[in-house]
Amino acid sequence: MEKLYIVKIGGNIIDNPAELDSFLQQFSAIKGNKILVHGGGKLATEVAEKSGIKQTLVDGRRRTDAETLKIAVMVYAGWINKSITAKLQALHCNAIGVSGADANLVTSEKRKNASIDFGFVGDILAGGINVKAFVQLLASSFTPVFCAITHDGKGQLLNTNADTMASAIAVALADHYEVSLVYCFEKNGVLADANDDASFIAELSATEYEMLKQKGVVTKGMIPKLDNAFNARKNVQDVIIGHSSRLEQMINKQKHAATYILN
Amino acid sequence: MEKLYIVKIGGNIIDNPAELDSFLQQFSAIKGNKILVHGGGKLATEVAEKSGIKQTLVDGRRRTDAETLKIAVMVYAGWINKSITAKLQALHCNAIGVSGADANLVTSEKRKNASIDFGFVGDILAGGINVKAFVQLLASSFTPVFCAITHDGKGQLLNTNADTMASAIAVALADHYEVSLVYCFEKNGVLADANDDASFIAELSATEYEMLKQKGVVTKGMIPKLDNAFNARKNVQDVIIGHSSRLEQMINKQKHAATYILN
Repeated sequence: MEKLYIVKIGGNIIDNPAELDSFLQQFSAIKGNKILVHGGGKLATEVAEKSGIKQTLVDGRRRTDAETLKIAVMVYAGWINKSITAKLQALHCNAIGVSGADANLVTSEKRKNASIDFGFVGDILAGGINVKAFVQLLASSFTPVFCAITHDGKGQLLNTNADTMASAIAVALADHYEVSLVYCFEKNGVLADANDDASFIAELSATEYEMLKQKGVVTKGMIPKLDNAFNARKNVQDVIIGHSSRLEQMINKQKHAATYILN
Repeated sequence: MEKLYIVKIGGNIIDNPAELDSFLQQFSAIKGNKILVHGGGKLATEVAEKSGIKQTLVDGRRRTDAETLKIAVMVYAGWINKSITAKLQALHCNAIGVSGADANLVTSEKRKNASIDFGFVGDILAGGINVKAFVQLLASSFTPVFCAITHDGKGQLLNTNADTMASAIAVALADHYEVSLVYCFEKNGVLADANDDASFIAELSATEYEMLKQKGVVTKGMIPKLDNAFNARKNVQDVIIGHSSRLEQMINKQKHAATYILN
């Protein structure tokens, strides 16, 4: 099987031009099949504020109403996606910026919840990853650059979690490629002490993860990310979480460079 | 050679949901290779106004400064492009929304003008159409949906005229496909009397076009469109200009349904 790297970057990197450029250089240097999944960053909030669009919070979470979705699509699928694509092209990486609607790559359904209306939020359907289209793009030597916007196949765009998107793509493509899934963020890995960036855990097992959750060491935001990571690790050869500046080391599976998820 | 339809729609259609839906139904019904190029519409101006971004006019034209470019990319490559793509997917047309940066499809250079600074406006380079990438996408049975954003290959996105984009793509692909280029807009064709929509000219020759220009019958906005059309017609089998609601008739080359450009 051919090798495939799926790399996800979060909003913190996108908001830092120097870090983003350094990351994109390392990403473009990866040989062979690769996919980039990117999150959002602060721009969507800025645009919403400038436009006077009030954010509705439901149960502490931002509700994706029609106007918020429009801004998410403009910012994520528009400015951020195309800016990254143009930068990668300048680095001779043959990037093609896509959402889940493009080539019907990722289909989701509007989240159903009896008590909470999350708005236009999409959960990726079982079988929602269009493996054939991914293979076609990769076989053409394109590097798909994904924003976390999906569609329901009936004309509706939906906002989707970028971590989940990366994980779902990795799992679905694991039958066709030898997949490495790399989550890049602003920390060196999963930290044993939230205040000490040097305390990252070099190898994390599911058992240890459960312990860290019980002890309250793994914080709220990390739980869905790690759930996605462990979920993917059942099917995917390598799942790695670490700092965006260390992408090269992570790709080379250098020990103690990040957190490696154990099966 | 295989047949390829390149269809361009303007902002007026995009701003009218019912017309857009009707157009997209007709477009999705075209069999085989097809490309859609779309213009902008009013949303970019609305977003700029809401965000309090002042439009700079240079010699009567809007200058694409950095903030205006950002909005153009957000609106054209983001919301409009992805909305159309999702709608086409719902109509079982395998659309893939792209800009010129994606897969390095269209490269342009920042417009140079000694006296006027147009800002981030890109003129398509000779050889700027990446024929190989177009063929790869079409051979994968994808339908590229283009916004008129291009890149300079050095990481800079640029705003480009959608009519010119459609024409340049048509000319570049004419060696590989039997190309029909269809410009859809809100009128029935090139009008002999600007106030009478029924007065459209069924067949227009270059000589007649020159006469119409001299008489002042062809108005300012139509001149670049028709220049593009006649320019393309030198290489492209069919160049047709007509109302978006008559796409099917134009595709079937039904006489007196639109203006057919003569060589």
